[in-house]
Amino acid sequence: MNTNLLAHINSPKELRELSKEQLPQVAKELRDFIIDIVATKEGHLGASLGVVELTIALHYVFNTPNDLLIWDVGHQAYGHKILTERKQLFHTNRQLGGISGFPKRSESIYDAFGTGHSSTSISAALGMAISSNIKGDFNKQHIAVIGDASIASGMAFEGLNHAGVTNANLLIILNDNMMGIDPSVGALKNYFTNVKAGKKVRKNNIIEALNFNYSGPIDGHNIEAVITELERLKNIKGPKFLHIITTKGKGLEKAEKDQVKYHAPGKFDKITGELEAKSTLIEPPKFQDVFGETMVELAEKNKHIVGITPAMPTGSSLKLMIDKFPERAFDVGIAEQHAVTLAAGMATQALVPFCAIYSTFLQRAYDQIIHDVALQNLPVIFCIDRAGIVGKDGATHHGVFDIAYLRCIPNLTIFAPLNEVELRNIMYTAQLGINFPLAIRYPRGRGFMLDWKQPFSTIKIGKGNCISEGNKIAVLTIGTIGNKIIELQPEFPKNEVAHYNMRFVKPLDTELLHQIFKKFNSIITIEDGTIVGGFGSAILEFAANNNYKNNTIKTLGIPDQFIEHGTVDELFSSLHLSKNELKKQILQELS
Amino acid sequence: MNTNLLAHINSPKELRELSKEQLPQVAKELRDFIIDIVATKEGHLGASLGVVELTIALHYVFNTPNDLLIWDVGHQAYGHKILTERKQLFHTNRQLGGISGFPKRSESIYDAFGTGHSSTSISAALGMAISSNIKGDFNKQHIAVIGDASIASGMAFEGLNHAGVTNANLLIILNDNMMGIDPSVGALKNYFTNVKAGKKVRKNNIIEALNFNYSGPIDGHNIEAVITELERLKNIKGPKFLHIITTKGKGLEKAEKDQVKYHAPGKFDKITGELEAKSTLIEPPKFQDVFGETMVELAEKNKHIVGITPAMPTGSSLKLMIDKFPERAFDVGIAEQHAVTLAAGMATQALVPFCAIYSTFLQRAYDQIIHDVALQNLPVIFCIDRAGIVGKDGATHHGVFDIAYLRCIPNLTIFAPLNEVELRNIMYTAQLGINFPLAIRYPRGRGFMLDWKQPFSTIKIGKGNCISEGNKIAVLTIGTIGNKIIELQPEFPKNEVAHYNMRFVKPLDTELLHQIFKKFNSIITIEDGTIVGGFGSAILEFAANNNYKNNTIKTLGIPDQFIEHGTVDELFSSLHLSKNELKKQILQELS
Repeated sequence: MNTNLLAHINSPKELRELSKEQLPQVAKELRDFIIDIVATKEGHLGASLGVVELTIALHYVFNTPNDLLIWDVGHQAYGHKILTERKQLFHTNRQLGGISGFPKRSESIYDAFGTGHSSTSISAALGMAISSNIKGDFNKQHIAVIGDASIASGMAFEGLNHAGVTNANLLIILNDNMMGIDPSVGALKNYFTNVKAGKKVRKNNIIEALNFNYSGPIDGHNIEAVITELERLKNIKGPKFLHIITTKGKGLEKAEKDQVKYHAPGKFDKITGELEAKSTLIEPPKFQDVFGETMVELAEKNKHIVGITPAMPTGSSLKLMIDKFPERAFDVGIAEQHAVTLAAGMATQALVPFCAIYSTFLQRAYDQIIHDVALQNLPVIFCIDRAGIVGKDGATHHGVFDIAYLRCIPNLTIFAPLNEVELRNIMYTAQLGINFPLAIRYPRGRGFMLDWKQPFSTIKIGKGNCISEGNKIAVLTIGTIGNKIIELQPEFPKNEVAHYNMRFVKPLDTELLHQIFKKFNSIITIEDGTIVGGFGSAILEFAANNNYKNNTIKTLGIPDQFIEHGTVDELFSSLHLSKNELKKQILQELS
Repeated sequence: MNTNLLAHINSPKELRELSKEQLPQVAKELRDFIIDIVATKEGHLGASLGVVELTIALHYVFNTPNDLLIWDVGHQAYGHKILTERKQLFHTNRQLGGISGFPKRSESIYDAFGTGHSSTSISAALGMAISSNIKGDFNKQHIAVIGDASIASGMAFEGLNHAGVTNANLLIILNDNMMGIDPSVGALKNYFTNVKAGKKVRKNNIIEALNFNYSGPIDGHNIEAVITELERLKNIKGPKFLHIITTKGKGLEKAEKDQVKYHAPGKFDKITGELEAKSTLIEPPKFQDVFGETMVELAEKNKHIVGITPAMPTGSSLKLMIDKFPERAFDVGIAEQHAVTLAAGMATQALVPFCAIYSTFLQRAYDQIIHDVALQNLPVIFCIDRAGIVGKDGATHHGVFDIAYLRCIPNLTIFAPLNEVELRNIMYTAQLGINFPLAIRYPRGRGFMLDWKQPFSTIKIGKGNCISEGNKIAVLTIGTIGNKIIELQPEFPKNEVAHYNMRFVKPLDTELLHQIFKKFNSIITIEDGTIVGGFGSAILEFAANNNYKNNTIKTLGIPDQFIEHGTVDELFSSLHLSKNELKKQILQELS
């Protein structure tokens, strides 16, 4: 029985040639294959281990890629990728030039819809299913696999609400493991938990109330049961919903036990699951921990401070505050829209809400920032995590649009700290009392300072500073990318390159800018956001509005294209924003 | 009994001094007061008439403004405004300098949270209720009134899902009249209809499944019943949900019968309800009708065209297509996020989705545009209605950010038609087949041409045109505001002002721009969107990227502030974008 079945499977076609009895063996091999490679190449682990049986069953029962299969969020799709012609490429997962860590249409015909952000799968699959009806293709199957954390997001509800009144041939599979990245939260999660415990009978079902044909819950690791149920559902028309129960991290004991840590564990021992020992190097802190620890420090003194995260307590490190002040810090689930307006409501009652959201996910709450916060000029403090290039998560996750999409919003102040101390001090300044909304953007990963826990001091709103004087050229930076110029300074000709840390994208420090524009003909702006409408454009607008005609302004930043995955350093190099590339461009401008 | 009770009520304080038996009389007077004024001053009618009893009951039972009352969307809050110190001001409703048509914090202490867009009330009220818990104020009441169309939006679900696991003292009142502006749609609406019909028993309730204390449904026009229930609920802790049934337009027969028309009927006879006779003037069409009629025309020939609107079939005129091709045109309810990703799903199946969304509501789908459409480069066609200044709906509804927030998105093409013919032709061009997403923005209201139904011709993507030659100055316009320059041309010195209709915000017509920048030192850009990051900034970026240093560029547009309500003409004047104001500025630049 220990033949290597997976070795002979390159696509679902070979899988379908096996007998059902062979599939548990395939599941074992697929699980081992994932563990083997992720153990050394890193990536998302727990989610894919949890759906190994489901993945095999889906490709066994359905005629992919003709039948359309969508993986919500998509970090559970490793098994899917391996079974769909990407086994040989899987070791390149998330690497520059390699396959993406998420489903991606341009990568494979089996990836029916690209994902990355949560809760899009129902809408996309419904769109496809309605299309098939319009085209008269009534046999095509359309399947969305969505987790219990993702289905609780508003967008998923909108999809369910529409699907329930259609005759679309749509199958939604709820992969219920009670986890997102962190444990799932919310009333719907409690409801599903009750369903599993048998406390609600099938007939009194939220999903059935929305007019779905509901089945389950069934054991998602019982491959035979899953296949039997999928085969039954395949022949039922209209919107269907299958509830399966799985264990995140299934098959690797440590991953099952510590599901948060093993969501994306880094390198680990493939047999024991033991994580690779942490570097003993004393390193600067992650910006996330600077945020989290500073929240606790400030909240201890200021009883009005509250913290909000939409489903990223661990990732954002708001968990530090949730653990210490559970009554004042909230994980609201994957609900960015709600998170922002909840914060607005709190701000009306004189609380001091810090709302921590990843830059790319804040896109989900754009209207709420405008309509509920900025229009009412409420002092909500947005801590925009993972701004800029995020690395291996790639195109769906880079936080490169925030400066451009926030800058056009009246009343909003936008700050980007140069380093850990500036992040701490702007947080300190904000909670002292501001009468406007404030956005603070900082990147994923480590900062620059070992001695970052310095006594607080206030930051003057709307004021930048000069880091080094110079006479030939002015370099204006916003945020942490400014550290590259600080490091480069010794490599520039002496007294030629002036460096200004502008700190605020909005309002601009016009006093400082007037000084700069009067002194320097040549000005370079540098940011780790899109150059279309970004910080550089703000400087161009300042120049035009003030009739500065003798200055040459060069704007450096992320070009007008989606950026793929790779390490942060690799991507910065390819975008001409690495230290070396910046040096080259500045020296060129000098000459 | 026919004393005028309302005359003595300026605030809820006086209302609370009345006996319960007097309240039906107050309801009658309040209804008459609303009808009297809206009949001549115009505004939203049906929604406020439907909640007259509820409004009185709420202010009678609860201790407003200490207890916090939030009206979702807010166009049902006229009675609330009249009872809360704004009776004397109500005739200024929606007028420049007058009170807002929506609740507004800066207008009154009784307006606990500003609204305008739907489905924000639950999140905001929950934020307030949690704040009270944190502050130890356990007697304060927090009430959100939300309609059945609004509660079906994803954001509302996110609020419910969070509220259900809190002990917040929150009361949600579902005002169920089966209507938004148009009839409500979706599975949840069907569910509520079943509840009313007694087909689902109270215990098997979606709302209870989300851990709310549910009561109802009760008759929302029975003021005594509503008061009794509110008094009972006032003493129950935790999240509560009251389901009331009302009739939109209640009390004016014609408004009850044609609820869509009487949502905001314009002027009407206050006794008969008869609408004011339409002008017999032959006028250019509304852009909405150009869109709607063109959809039908194109859909007749191209079987792949589908149309999508999130709850605005009448307002957008997609209703024309829904009536003619119901299997290819969809009202998905207040679900902008879903609408966009549904369209993306359809685009993957080679359908040609036209997604019609108001500019201000498209903010709700910002992430879906980036993540689901643009990143995958799917040819979704966004018809962005009510772009620019919308007039009396005011700050919550102006569509002034779209150019700025869309321009930073890679792959997206952005077009603004000069007139009806250009709108028709870009729609025609798009459905012939494009391989990128396209945003078409056009304003609320009437166009400029009587003979707009001309034979279709294609528009060259990324190309602008010269409307009039000139030698001294170049005026670059985008969209319909260009017509003001066309009309002004005879008033300018001959052969001095060149006028370019740029058509595309993205990609810019760089060939044409090079010609312009080489020929003209003085360039003026004009747009009806924010000047921060807008079309003008795109031109500044072009100039900087191409090292044009001798050109003076003046960017005219909406300044960096929220714009209040008033007529479109009044607002354009105050923003220096009226014909006269533009003329002044152009002549000044000439001299």
